[in-house]
Amino acid sequence: MATQYHDRPTINFLLYDVHEVEKACQLPFFSDHSRETFEMTLDAATLIADNIMFPNLLSVDRNQPELVDGEVKVHPCLKDYLKALGDSGIIGADFTYEDGGAQLPFSISSMVGHILMAANNGMMYTGLTTGAARLIASFGSEELKQKYIPDMLNGNWQGTMCLTEPQAGSSLSDIVCSAESAGENEFLVSGQKIFISAGDHDACRNVVHLVLARIKGAPLGTKGISLFVVPKYFEDGSKNDITNMGIYHKLGQKGVPAMHLGFGDQCRGYLLGEPNKGLNYMFQMMNEARIGVGFTGASISSAAYHAAVEYTKERPQSRRLNKKNALDSPQVAIIQHPDIRRMLLFQKAAVEGSLSLLTEVAQYFDLSHYSESEEERKKYHLLLELLTPIAKTYPCESGLRVTSDALQCFGGYGFTEDFPIEQYYRDIRITPIYEGTTGIQSQDLLGRKVAAENGAALKLLAGEIQKTIDEAMAYDHLKKYANELSAEIKNLSTITRHLISVAATGDTERFLSDATLYMELSGLVTIAWQWLKIGVTAQKKLAASDDLKSFYESKIHTMKFFYHYELPKTSGLSKRLLDEEVLTIDQGTEFQF
Amino acid sequence: MATQYHDRPTINFLLYDVHEVEKACQLPFFSDHSRETFEMTLDAATLIADNIMFPNLLSVDRNQPELVDGEVKVHPCLKDYLKALGDSGIIGADFTYEDGGAQLPFSISSMVGHILMAANNGMMYTGLTTGAARLIASFGSEELKQKYIPDMLNGNWQGTMCLTEPQAGSSLSDIVCSAESAGENEFLVSGQKIFISAGDHDACRNVVHLVLARIKGAPLGTKGISLFVVPKYFEDGSKNDITNMGIYHKLGQKGVPAMHLGFGDQCRGYLLGEPNKGLNYMFQMMNEARIGVGFTGASISSAAYHAAVEYTKERPQSRRLNKKNALDSPQVAIIQHPDIRRMLLFQKAAVEGSLSLLTEVAQYFDLSHYSESEEERKKYHLLLELLTPIAKTYPCESGLRVTSDALQCFGGYGFTEDFPIEQYYRDIRITPIYEGTTGIQSQDLLGRKVAAENGAALKLLAGEIQKTIDEAMAYDHLKKYANELSAEIKNLSTITRHLISVAATGDTERFLSDATLYMELSGLVTIAWQWLKIGVTAQKKLAASDDLKSFYESKIHTMKFFYHYELPKTSGLSKRLLDEEVLTIDQGTEFQF
Repeated sequence: MATQYHDRPTINFLLYDVHEVEKACQLPFFSDHSRETFEMTLDAATLIADNIMFPNLLSVDRNQPELVDGEVKVHPCLKDYLKALGDSGIIGADFTYEDGGAQLPFSISSMVGHILMAANNGMMYTGLTTGAARLIASFGSEELKQKYIPDMLNGNWQGTMCLTEPQAGSSLSDIVCSAESAGENEFLVSGQKIFISAGDHDACRNVVHLVLARIKGAPLGTKGISLFVVPKYFEDGSKNDITNMGIYHKLGQKGVPAMHLGFGDQCRGYLLGEPNKGLNYMFQMMNEARIGVGFTGASISSAAYHAAVEYTKERPQSRRLNKKNALDSPQVAIIQHPDIRRMLLFQKAAVEGSLSLLTEVAQYFDLSHYSESEEERKKYHLLLELLTPIAKTYPCESGLRVTSDALQCFGGYGFTEDFPIEQYYRDIRITPIYEGTTGIQSQDLLGRKVAAENGAALKLLAGEIQKTIDEAMAYDHLKKYANELSAEIKNLSTITRHLISVAATGDTERFLSDATLYMELSGLVTIAWQWLKIGVTAQKKLAASDDLKSFYESKIHTMKFFYHYELPKTSGLSKRLLDEEVLTIDQGTEFQF
Repeated sequence: MATQYHDRPTINFLLYDVHEVEKACQLPFFSDHSRETFEMTLDAATLIADNIMFPNLLSVDRNQPELVDGEVKVHPCLKDYLKALGDSGIIGADFTYEDGGAQLPFSISSMVGHILMAANNGMMYTGLTTGAARLIASFGSEELKQKYIPDMLNGNWQGTMCLTEPQAGSSLSDIVCSAESAGENEFLVSGQKIFISAGDHDACRNVVHLVLARIKGAPLGTKGISLFVVPKYFEDGSKNDITNMGIYHKLGQKGVPAMHLGFGDQCRGYLLGEPNKGLNYMFQMMNEARIGVGFTGASISSAAYHAAVEYTKERPQSRRLNKKNALDSPQVAIIQHPDIRRMLLFQKAAVEGSLSLLTEVAQYFDLSHYSESEEERKKYHLLLELLTPIAKTYPCESGLRVTSDALQCFGGYGFTEDFPIEQYYRDIRITPIYEGTTGIQSQDLLGRKVAAENGAALKLLAGEIQKTIDEAMAYDHLKKYANELSAEIKNLSTITRHLISVAATGDTERFLSDATLYMELSGLVTIAWQWLKIGVTAQKKLAASDDLKSFYESKIHTMKFFYHYELPKTSGLSKRLLDEEVLTIDQGTEFQF
C-alpha cells in the first residue's frame, strides 16, 4: 500500500509561486486571509484525509452501500468523516461569513477538495452538499437559507443535485419531472431522478435535494425548468414522499451511493428563486461543479501516480539495458528503466499540469466574483467560461491514461486487488461522463465559448498566454519552448478560424462533428502553457538561490517532457481538424456497424 | 444486455475474401480441409459460445473462484464448458492427427478462439491447456505424449504455463525455481510460481503444469532454464506435493483463477526435452501464445463494440445538431450524433483491423510451419516473428480505448453493473500486461525483430505491403490511400534507419528508450495496411456485383475513417522518434518524482 497520495510541496509551489494566490488577499472580500490561514485549512484537510479517508480507501470500496428495507446503509466511517468535515468548517469554507462560511478563496477550497479526493474519492459526499447549499445561498429566500444552510454546512444534512432522469441524461431540455403549486412557494414535485450521488444514506440526519422539474404549463425545453428544494424530512420530523427505488452498483466510486429516486404524488418542495429559471441557476453553479470534477480527475490521478512512483522505486526487475547481460549483478529498481520513466513522467506532467490549470481557473473564479472593477470581473468571467470545459476535460481524459499507465507500472500486480491501483483505474472512469460528458464539454467549448462575444474570450486567453511566452523568452533554456508554444497558438487560431468558417455555413452538425478533437488540441496547448509558466517560475527560483535545486530542476525536466512527448500530438489532431472529408455524419444511407 | 458479441459475416469476409485462408487447403498438411470443414468448426464454437459461455458472462464475473480449504472452487458452468469443448475437439483442433488433433489451420483455430473469447473471456481455460499440450506434443517423449495429451485435449485435464515467480516477472533470466534429478527423467521440482491462470480448479480431474526451473548447477540466466511436466495427480491417483498458496482477486477476467502455487520438497516432475533448453522451447510457443492474447484483446473489444452499437441504436437522447431547437420533435437514437459515430467508427476500425492483422499473422504461422519449400517456410517465419509483437500489442492497446469509448457511448449507464460494458473495460486491462507487457513487446520488435538478419523481415514486410499498394492503385477511390500508405512506409523506414544508427553507437538504452512509441507507430502503419487490403477486397466485390453493397461500402467507409482519424497520429510519433533530446534515461542525478 502506497503511503503518499498527494504532494504538498508541489501544491504549495503551484499555489504560492506559480499562481501567487495570496494576491487574492488584497481584495476586500478575502482581506482577512493570508498564506497562514490558507495553510491552516490545507493542514486541517490533510489531517482528515490522513486519519479518516486514506485508511478507509479499500474498506469503503469493498463494502459498498446497500439498499436494505428501503434504507441506504453506508460504511460506518462516513459518519466520522461527515462530522470531521462539518466541525472543521470545510464544507462551506468559501461561503460568505453571512451564510456561515469563512470567505476562503475558491482556489484554496478547491485545493482542499483535491487533498481529500486524492485520499479517498469514494468518500466525497460533501462536494454535493456544498453545491446544493450554494444554490440555496445564491438564489434562496432568507427563510430557505436559515432553514437549510446551517445543518448542511455542519455536515448533519446531506445535499444532492437531482438533474438526470431516465429519458434525459445529457439532454436536460427533455426533463419531465413535474411540479404543481400547493400553497405559497410550496409545490408538489413528482417524477423520477437517476444517478443521484449520495441520494440517501444513514450517515446523515436529513437529505436536501435540489430538484429540476417543470411547473405544469411551463414552456417546452430548457426555458420551462424550475428548481426546487425538496427535503427528505420536514422540520416537524415528518418524512417526505420520496422513495429509494434502486441503488446502482458501479464500476468505481463504490463508496458513494448512486440512487434512483422516486418523488411521489405527495412529495412537497419549495421553489428556489423564480419559476422557469432553474436551469439558469444550475448553470451558474456549473463552472464550479465542473472545475470540481476536473479536480476529481487530477486527484485520483495524483494518488495513482504516487502509488506508481513508490512501487517502481521498490520493485527490482531485470538490469539496465546497457548492462543486460551482467546476470551476476543484482536486479535494479524498475524506476531506472526508460519505459517506466516515460510512463511516470507522463503521469507527473499530466497530474501537475492539470493541477496548475485548475488552480488558474479557480483563481479566475475568485477574480470574476470578487475583483473590484466591473471590467476585471467581466474579463475573468470570460476566461473562466472559456477554460472551464477544458479544465473539466483534460484532467479526466488524461487521467484515464494516467491511471492506466500507473497500473501498467505495477505489471501483473497492478491487475490484482493487492494494490489500490486497480481501484483508481475503476474510480476515475466516471469523471469524463458526469457533470457533462467529454462530448458535451467539447460542444460547449467550440460551439459556445470560443464563439462567444466575437471570440473575445479567446483573445483574452491568447493575451494571458503571451505574457507567459514573453517572460519565458528572457531565459535561454526556455526560449525554444516559448517559441513552440507561440507556434501552437498560431496553429490553434488557424484551426479555430477554419471551424468558425464551417459554422458560418449554418451546418452546425458539421461544425461540431470533431469538437472532441478540438478539445483534445486545446487541452494540449493549454497544459503546455501551464508547463511553460511552471518552467518560468522554477527558472526564477533557480536563479535566486540553490534551495530545493532538484525540486525545481525536476519541474523544468517535466516541462520538457511534456513538450517533447505530448505536445507533438497536436500535429495529427490539426491534420484531421483541417481535413474536409466528412465521415461521422449520419447521411441517412444504410451503414453496417 | 446486448445480444451480439461477434460478427460472423465480417469474420467470413476476412477469412475467405481478404485473406483467402482456403488456399491453405492446397498444402498437403491441410489437404483434408475445405471451407466446409472450417465453417463446421466455427459453427460448433458458436453453439458453445451462445449456449454456455455468453449466458454466463455476468454470473462467472460475479461468482469468482475462491480458495476453500486449500481447494479452488469455480463456477459450476465451467464443467459444462470444458466437457463441451473437449467433446467438440476444439482444444486440440490444430494438433496433428497423430497427436489426436484435426490438423486445422491455426488461422481457423484462432478464429474459433475469437468467437469463444468474445462470448466470455472469463471462461477461457482451454487456451492454456492447448498451449501446455502443444509443448508436450512438440518436445515430449512418446511416453509423456501418450500419458498426458489425450486427457488434456478431451477437456478432462487442465494445462497451465508456470513461468512467473515473485521476484521474476518480466525478467525470466532471474527464475530461481529449482530441479534436482530423482531418477530417469524424473526430477524434484521446487519453488513458487505466481499469476498461474487456471492453476487449479474443481472443474477438471487433473492439472498438468508446464514449469520452468533450473537444474542444480545449471548456468546463470536464460541458458540454464529447463522445462518440466508437473502433474497434480499421478497415474496411481496419488497427489503431488503442490500447494495452492493463494488466489489473486483481480480487476477483471474474474472467472479464471490466478494462483500462487507452491511446489514443495517432494514435488516430482518430468523433464521435457533436453536440459537447459526450457526457455527455447517456451519461446517457440510464444508466437502462438502472443497471437492468442492479441485475439483476446480483439475479442473483448468486439463484444464491447457490438454492445455499444446495440445500445446507441436504441437509446434516444437529444436531437440532431442541425435541429437542436425542434423541441417538439422526438429525441433521436444517439447513434445519429457525430461524436457517437466517431467513437463507434474508431471501435469498428480497431476491432476489424485487429482481426485482419491477426488473421494475416495466423496465416503466416501456418505457412511458416507447413509450406512445402524451405524458402517459403523461412520467409513466413521471418514475417511471423516480425509481426507477432505488433499483433499482440495493437489489439490490446487499442482495445483499452475501444472498451473505454464503448463505455462512454453508454453515458452514466456505462459505469453501472446494469450492462456488461464495465466488465469488458475491466477484463481487457490485463491484455497489455500478460504474455509480455507492451514494453517488452516493443523492445522485442525494435531490439530483436527489426534488426534480425540485417533487416530482412522488414524488407519482406515492405514487399507484402507494396503488393497491396499496387493493387489499390488500380482503383481511383483507393489511390489516395495507397499513396498515403506508401508515404507512411517511407517514413517508417527513415525512422528505423535513424534508430538503428543510435543502436550502432552501442547505447542500447537510448536505442530502446522510446521503443513503445516505435511500436505505436508500427501498429498504426500495419493496421493501415490491413485496412487498405480490406478496401481493395471490398472494392473488387462491389465491382463484381450488387450483393451486400452496404456491407462492402461500410468497410470502405471504415477504411477511410482509419486513414483520416487514426493514421495522422503517426506525425506526432515520428516527430518524437526523430527527436534527439534524451529525457527518460536515468542519469543518476536526483530527480524528484
